[in-house]
Amino acid sequence: MTKKIAILGATGSIGKSTLDLVERNRDSYQVTAVTAATNVEALADVARRSGAKLAVVADESRYADLAELLVGTSCRAAAGENALLEAAAGDAGLIIAAIVGCAGLRPVMAAVDAGKTVALANKEALVTAGALMTDAAALSGATILPVDSEHNAIFQCLAGSRAADVSRIILTASGGPFRTASAETIAAATPAQAVAHPNWSMGAKISVDSATLMNKGLELIEAHYLFNLPSERIDILVHPQSVVHSMVEFVDGSVLAQLGSADMRIPIAYALAWPERMETPAQRLDLATIAHLDFEAPDLERFSALRLAREALERGGAAPIVLNAANEGAVASFLAGAIRLPDIARLVQEALSNSDYDAPRSIGDVLEIDRVTRDRTKAMMAASCP
Amino acid sequence: MTKKIAILGATGSIGKSTLDLVERNRDSYQVTAVTAATNVEALADVARRSGAKLAVVADESRYADLAELLVGTSCRAAAGENALLEAAAGDAGLIIAAIVGCAGLRPVMAAVDAGKTVALANKEALVTAGALMTDAAALSGATILPVDSEHNAIFQCLAGSRAADVSRIILTASGGPFRTASAETIAAATPAQAVAHPNWSMGAKISVDSATLMNKGLELIEAHYLFNLPSERIDILVHPQSVVHSMVEFVDGSVLAQLGSADMRIPIAYALAWPERMETPAQRLDLATIAHLDFEAPDLERFSALRLAREALERGGAAPIVLNAANEGAVASFLAGAIRLPDIARLVQEALSNSDYDAPRSIGDVLEIDRVTRDRTKAMMAASCP
Repeated sequence: MTKKIAILGATGSIGKSTLDLVERNRDSYQVTAVTAATNVEALADVARRSGAKLAVVADESRYADLAELLVGTSCRAAAGENALLEAAAGDAGLIIAAIVGCAGLRPVMAAVDAGKTVALANKEALVTAGALMTDAAALSGATILPVDSEHNAIFQCLAGSRAADVSRIILTASGGPFRTASAETIAAATPAQAVAHPNWSMGAKISVDSATLMNKGLELIEAHYLFNLPSERIDILVHPQSVVHSMVEFVDGSVLAQLGSADMRIPIAYALAWPERMETPAQRLDLATIAHLDFEAPDLERFSALRLAREALERGGAAPIVLNAANEGAVASFLAGAIRLPDIARLVQEALSNSDYDAPRSIGDVLEIDRVTRDRTKAMMAASCP
Repeated sequence: MTKKIAILGATGSIGKSTLDLVERNRDSYQVTAVTAATNVEALADVARRSGAKLAVVADESRYADLAELLVGTSCRAAAGENALLEAAAGDAGLIIAAIVGCAGLRPVMAAVDAGKTVALANKEALVTAGALMTDAAALSGATILPVDSEHNAIFQCLAGSRAADVSRIILTASGGPFRTASAETIAAATPAQAVAHPNWSMGAKISVDSATLMNKGLELIEAHYLFNLPSERIDILVHPQSVVHSMVEFVDGSVLAQLGSADMRIPIAYALAWPERMETPAQRLDLATIAHLDFEAPDLERFSALRLAREALERGGAAPIVLNAANEGAVASFLAGAIRLPDIARLVQEALSNSDYDAPRSIGDVLEIDRVTRDRTKAMMAASCP
């Protein structure tokens, strides 16, 4: 049986890996729609190679260019948010949701509302709109399959289990480049040092989040919504080798863990083939060569972002939106050389302390709280770091 | 819903742990039958505590004593092999098969033939009669749930997977007390050194098997029959901490592992509650405190028993019976101080080389090959170690 899939964010890293897998399994997958933010050249290339029937560029000003690039193909060009929503809620049953940032919220919600199976690689969807998304999925019958390696690991470990049998989830964290660094070293860290992630090749923003461990804090919030477990039943464990991608402890004391090489094609393949599996060219895990796996408790003093994220999760409502938006603004400032690494957590804490929004009732509310928080964070930074 | 269970081998370690779990969950389990080899005092005690309706002592000469001990209870006393088979094929739906050694073969087969769910703790059933048992289970619809921690781990990791999605199984091995010892040290090892297992508290025979790694070789054979995978898709990985109990690699490159503290109540609980789970008092795994997990390839030179077991598996037919019987005889001689540790593998190799039995067609055939091999091994030892 051929699965029809739409790839939202087809020109990014997740989109490319998805296409790589699909191209190796042409009999099983048919790409119906592909989207991108602005890069029409890459999008048109993907559309041609995949045989998609619809290609959408979010940036409406690039419509004419896209249309021209697709002349002579059977792929229709489209642009703008409504076209993105059309791609998300169209005839594909499986939606790869890999749009980066809050720009992904409405398309993900459109796919969820349409009852699709959503392979979710957009972090903001559950961090900022977790309750809205999971409520909508319960209503429409949509299935959310996490693509992030940690949550995908947990999803794999939970396969076939009853919720009542789960005791806790253990999210593993690499600990980032400053795992063994002193508070002083961390305070003096340059952007170049912060983006040097030990195990995964990632973008600058997410690399800084990995250095502060805010990344793991955001994943904690995602895990809460994905797996419907309270904060106190989601632990974080530092594991520098990132071989164990996460674990689940059951009521009998048994722990299941998912392990693998650092290749995003593994979790993407799991989401593509679920509830079955598909072959991938990912390197096989060779534990005899890896030889050692280490584990330690996270240090909530040096990595206070973790503590802040847990506080935001426990406070609920709009707090995770504020956490995420303030962090994004602060990370951008850090990367621009305007603030020091520990200032990120400080600014996030201030943003949380100074906010008291009602819980969002729509994606519109989420986007508004996100926008206001970004503006306020900029203002705070302008005030504190002249 | 109350599950009716029969415990074959109720007075041994597995039997006691099973009773401990059942006593903590009286609403969910009803013990209908218990059996023991000879210890009627312990058996009568277990029968009274569990409220079993049938207590069977294998040794017929102990019948009168058992009957007298059960006077005034509603538990019927019985003795001998037919009574054991009655307990195995009676009204319990779940049979805990924990009789040690080849004495367990007929009772396990009776439970399998009766289509029961068999929680299998008897190693010989699959090592010596694997094809017979799995063929009989396919015919009767019986389900075999492995209780051994390694196979139980694999069973947990496989939950809900299609056979086609499995790439290989990775059995972990502690490496035993001589993991880092030189061949010379191993050759000079005393029985006391050999039975000092680093992680699990076990009987003397199985501790020696753990020291030679024959234990893992026997588990390799069991895994072949339990999970229907060829020898080349079952790997062995040394993991001294015995925290990871075993793993499964899937075709996408993903590896699932089951971890836990060294408490047999965890796999027993899984077998009791399957396909659900039950709470146990087993200590929770604390990886931050454990801190390090190590892995290395097994050394087939110092631990040639592993190589012999794989050869026996690949040869098939009666070879695993010969391997097991010759090993048991040789281990007894080693424990009695008559031979050195490396002589065990040498004697097993000789027994394999000198045997050419047809594949067994019945448990009777298995028991006959087992008996003849034991006699021949004794004769070989008498000849070589006067």
